[in-house]
Amino acid sequence: MSVPAVNLAQTPGGRQYVRLPGPWSLELGGTLPEVTVAYETYGRLNAAGTNVVLVCHALTGDAHVAAHHPGDKPGWWEGLVGEGRPLDTRRWFVVCSNILGGCQGTTGPSSINPATGEPYGLDFPLITVGDMVRVQQALLKHLGVRRVAMVTGGSLGGMQALTWVALFPEMIDQALLFGSPWASSAQAIAWNEIGRHAILMDPNWQDGRYEPGRGPDQGLAIARMLAMISYRSWGDFNQRFGREQVPPGTDPVAERAGKYATMLPAGHPFHMRFQMESYLHYQGEKLVRRFDARTYLYLTRAMDLFDCNEYDQSHWDRAAKAGVRVTAVGISSDILYPAEEVQGLVQELQQRGVQAEYRHLESPAGHDAFLLEAETTGRWIREALAREVPS
Amino acid sequence: MSVPAVNLAQTPGGRQYVRLPGPWSLELGGTLPEVTVAYETYGRLNAAGTNVVLVCHALTGDAHVAAHHPGDKPGWWEGLVGEGRPLDTRRWFVVCSNILGGCQGTTGPSSINPATGEPYGLDFPLITVGDMVRVQQALLKHLGVRRVAMVTGGSLGGMQALTWVALFPEMIDQALLFGSPWASSAQAIAWNEIGRHAILMDPNWQDGRYEPGRGPDQGLAIARMLAMISYRSWGDFNQRFGREQVPPGTDPVAERAGKYATMLPAGHPFHMRFQMESYLHYQGEKLVRRFDARTYLYLTRAMDLFDCNEYDQSHWDRAAKAGVRVTAVGISSDILYPAEEVQGLVQELQQRGVQAEYRHLESPAGHDAFLLEAETTGRWIREALAREVPS
Repeated sequence: MSVPAVNLAQTPGGRQYVRLPGPWSLELGGTLPEVTVAYETYGRLNAAGTNVVLVCHALTGDAHVAAHHPGDKPGWWEGLVGEGRPLDTRRWFVVCSNILGGCQGTTGPSSINPATGEPYGLDFPLITVGDMVRVQQALLKHLGVRRVAMVTGGSLGGMQALTWVALFPEMIDQALLFGSPWASSAQAIAWNEIGRHAILMDPNWQDGRYEPGRGPDQGLAIARMLAMISYRSWGDFNQRFGREQVPPGTDPVAERAGKYATMLPAGHPFHMRFQMESYLHYQGEKLVRRFDARTYLYLTRAMDLFDCNEYDQSHWDRAAKAGVRVTAVGISSDILYPAEEVQGLVQELQQRGVQAEYRHLESPAGHDAFLLEAETTGRWIREALAREVPS
Repeated sequence: MSVPAVNLAQTPGGRQYVRLPGPWSLELGGTLPEVTVAYETYGRLNAAGTNVVLVCHALTGDAHVAAHHPGDKPGWWEGLVGEGRPLDTRRWFVVCSNILGGCQGTTGPSSINPATGEPYGLDFPLITVGDMVRVQQALLKHLGVRRVAMVTGGSLGGMQALTWVALFPEMIDQALLFGSPWASSAQAIAWNEIGRHAILMDPNWQDGRYEPGRGPDQGLAIARMLAMISYRSWGDFNQRFGREQVPPGTDPVAERAGKYATMLPAGHPFHMRFQMESYLHYQGEKLVRRFDARTYLYLTRAMDLFDCNEYDQSHWDRAAKAGVRVTAVGISSDILYPAEEVQGLVQELQQRGVQAEYRHLESPAGHDAFLLEAETTGRWIREALAREVPS
């Protein structure tokens, strides 16, 4: 590509933007004329460009892994990044970028299509995890990164980490995955499809051409509510909510975060009655406020299409030759990507000659344990990085 | 009640109707002026009125347990009722009634409110499993039943069977439950609430005052689709559908059952791509054609409210004194009412002095194993009934 990348801006919160010139040819045949990437970094890149940890976020995550300074907004792996932390910024240059197709600054279906001056909507091409990873790799090149000590992430972030092993094994030392599969299961596809369907059937969907703030909030909230079942567990909900009822006349959800458009009025015979319901509505409404429904469609479809069987043996031979090590963590109570599925991933890699190890995270928290059990997650990151010697 | 019950009709398919005069005072304070019950029977009641098995159906089931004659529509426990079958009609008089709140002929929210001449809609009072069981008991009295050898059912049917133990222990010998809890868990409430929310947010909901065939089909289909995840299992879906794709240009769902109002047009970028999706849409559409969304709201809420802790020890003392035996079957792959929850139910009963036994059904089919593993289910019914000596 002859057109250089352009640094666009850096916000006080630590978010930076770069425009990577195209055209970008996508795996499923689509093209993007250019891609803007929003990302955040922690620590400093060494002169050799080799002290790098790439963190990959999950479906509704973003580049903000942790606060950059006291008073900054906490990140989704808060406590894991900083001086003396598992991702120790005295030693490591930590990078996390908002993924392709997202809605936090990186090009996605809510971005303006340069050809029309309007948001892409459904004109945005279908994307894959491979496309996301190629954009990440171009970002790292732009930043001067030559080698990555570790790629890590959970869920969709783990899918990205595994795809790094398949696509750019010569550039990475190891991958550490939490609760992610070798290929999306039928049930994982089912969860996603129902959420998408709720969005697409919302009268405010309007073929994806809605104005900001006037989108299919009800559908997106339903998608989030049902996803929350898949992210937690039967035992976790029992322990946290049980059969606790919302005291009559109060509306704790509304108290916590204002009045919601997606909720039934108090007094309605089917207004929420249990704390469990209040929690679900709260989670639904919270996502609606920070996330775009179009992105939800495109990213969940990319997850459905994730299938490492599509990479032939030449990819895994390269990974084996490069000496890439994979550690995959299964979570005991994960119903979305069950521990046995993560064990299967390790076996698939081993059968293809790639160094892979399974670790079991015993936790009642469900799939989200990769976010909630930060102490264990952090300890394992620290242990894995202790074996790394940045050149 | 001085007004006698009135036999209303009997259809050629075996469905019978009776009007039970009221007023019916409901557990949560509501009243129904009268209740019509639709039911089906198999075999003949003996002179003493004691050779009775009461079968209780689940959320979207009905009174049609099995075909009444060759060529009749198969029932939801087809193969279990008939001459020489586990529920042997040479010996047993088998009764199943459509439950209160339903939409198959028994009074429910889509029935006409005698006070207004319009469907009840949201004016229908909230009901409980206890209310359903009281209506069943009145039906049995009307039929001349004096003693019930066994009450059996799965899921919501199991909740009814357990409620029989609490409310009418002197009238029954034993209860056989499949995949049902002592009290609805937080996660069970979560599944239900999301389905209800999808219905209530459908623009065709119209406060429940829709014309037949113009209801919230999209919302009800979404409710059904997500319930299907809870009824099956990760392994079951993997085995049946895996990552199999729908061949491009074909639409197997449409081929199976006509064109659906609830689906995206072919060619849409998010039209179903995987067989898993096709199956979900098929299940959603199938329910829409035979079920009413208002009933879905009322019955799921009754399930949420199911909590046997609300029956004080006097109920269980009566059950113990009457010698009622409870057998509760847990299903190994059930994610809706996990086996450990059914084990918990047995412990709760034992702690209260009621004879209770746990049986484990090893099956990959998920919660629906109580429907799908008919051979095992039938064998256990047969074994339990072998101990009965109708007087």
